[in-house]
Amino acid sequence: MRLIDKTVTNGVSETTFAVDDIPGVLWQPAGATSRQPLVLLAHGTGHHKKSGIVVGRARRFVVSCGLAVAALDAPGHGDRPATDQEEEFVVGFKERMAAGAPLGAYIDRYNRELATRALPDWPIALDALQKLDGIGADGPVGFWGLSLGTTIGVQLAAAEPRISAAVLGLAGHEGLGGPAARVRIPIQFLLQWDDELVPRESAFALFGAIGSTEKTLHANPGRHLAVPGHEWESAELFFTRHLVRDALLTR
Amino acid sequence: MRLIDKTVTNGVSETTFAVDDIPGVLWQPAGATSRQPLVLLAHGTGHHKKSGIVVGRARRFVVSCGLAVAALDAPGHGDRPATDQEEEFVVGFKERMAAGAPLGAYIDRYNRELATRALPDWPIALDALQKLDGIGADGPVGFWGLSLGTTIGVQLAAAEPRISAAVLGLAGHEGLGGPAARVRIPIQFLLQWDDELVPRESAFALFGAIGSTEKTLHANPGRHLAVPGHEWESAELFFTRHLVRDALLTR
Repeated sequence: MRLIDKTVTNGVSETTFAVDDIPGVLWQPAGATSRQPLVLLAHGTGHHKKSGIVVGRARRFVVSCGLAVAALDAPGHGDRPATDQEEEFVVGFKERMAAGAPLGAYIDRYNRELATRALPDWPIALDALQKLDGIGADGPVGFWGLSLGTTIGVQLAAAEPRISAAVLGLAGHEGLGGPAARVRIPIQFLLQWDDELVPRESAFALFGAIGSTEKTLHANPGRHLAVPGHEWESAELFFTRHLVRDALLTR
Repeated sequence: MRLIDKTVTNGVSETTFAVDDIPGVLWQPAGATSRQPLVLLAHGTGHHKKSGIVVGRARRFVVSCGLAVAALDAPGHGDRPATDQEEEFVVGFKERMAAGAPLGAYIDRYNRELATRALPDWPIALDALQKLDGIGADGPVGFWGLSLGTTIGVQLAAAEPRISAAVLGLAGHEGLGGPAARVRIPIQFLLQWDDELVPRESAFALFGAIGSTEKTLHANPGRHLAVPGHEWESAELFFTRHLVRDALLTR
């Protein structure tokens, strides 16, 4: 892991790093002397590791819950070189927008292809992050990602035993039923009741397919991007419960 | 209001009262010097105002959130005289159990009839409770009730302007679509994914019918009575947000 830059703002340190060719950011409580549970935060399509929503989310997890939070750029996003797939996606996206054609299945297909490319990055980054003093190799690890972040997260949660709780959502069942059935960790799953990109029944089917004993669906009115603010607070309660309190109890 | 009995246990006072012929209990932080937001807590069919689950729930709201909580006996329940309707319901219930017949529609029909009888009690009790020093006439009022409590609560939330937030759930759409559409307050709605009494689609339809801008559905695996413990904590967060914090902001 190469540490590139570190700043501290309002009690939160922000460290830019790279592992191999994967750019990332790590947020931590500034000056913390004990280890923090880690949340991996996956951005959505067209965003990147320092998008406003990612930074805002990360800082709240640090300040409210005392967590460390790491985000990576997905392939073709943020500081990573654009690829043919991203350029083709954007061209097709604009064509469909101009024609007023439905976008949901188009974005979903692209997300699944992109998730396949992004997936190997996360265990590599996690290996490196767990070597840092503030994180450590045996601390609890959570995952937060909606939409594209869930296309990645369902597969990661199914395959990566170090992840012990995840907030997912805004994604459908297509192509994810198999990995979802192998997930065993507590899941909080967000659904937008009037999602224009993900059919409600498909999101219900993905939630239903998740193999975990403890899973909870939170559905709210509104379109794909209109997740209400109280869900951030609810995610903080979820991570506090599973990464902070449960972790203390099992030690 | 007649005050019948008052005890204090572990920092929570429990006052038994009666308004007209309606028996009730009020839990409050013992020795509190400021007014508390009030939560009205409606028990389920076959339970009563001092059922273990009611008392446990009430005490947690008092201790964790600093709320006052009031519960009433529904007609024919607890300290109220049994009625023909309750006796007929129990006979029919046992017959259906013995025959292995489905119970959902039978209980739902009874709940709607019982809710019609129970509904007028709540504004009467609320009038009396708001005359108490610890509550006051202009404080925020919430409502918590599942199953029968929701058959009552949807109609009460639609008609009673003093109620400003409610936790509801475990009930279907039948007979409640009209009042649900008139509800305008924040609602947290619980659904059990494998509910043997309430068809999932019917619960979805009731949630969908609620007219509130802010409403959130929490669905969890398991049968009718298997609501997971984390939903109690989530209800505390919900009431804290709407009865404590929002109330401070709007004063």
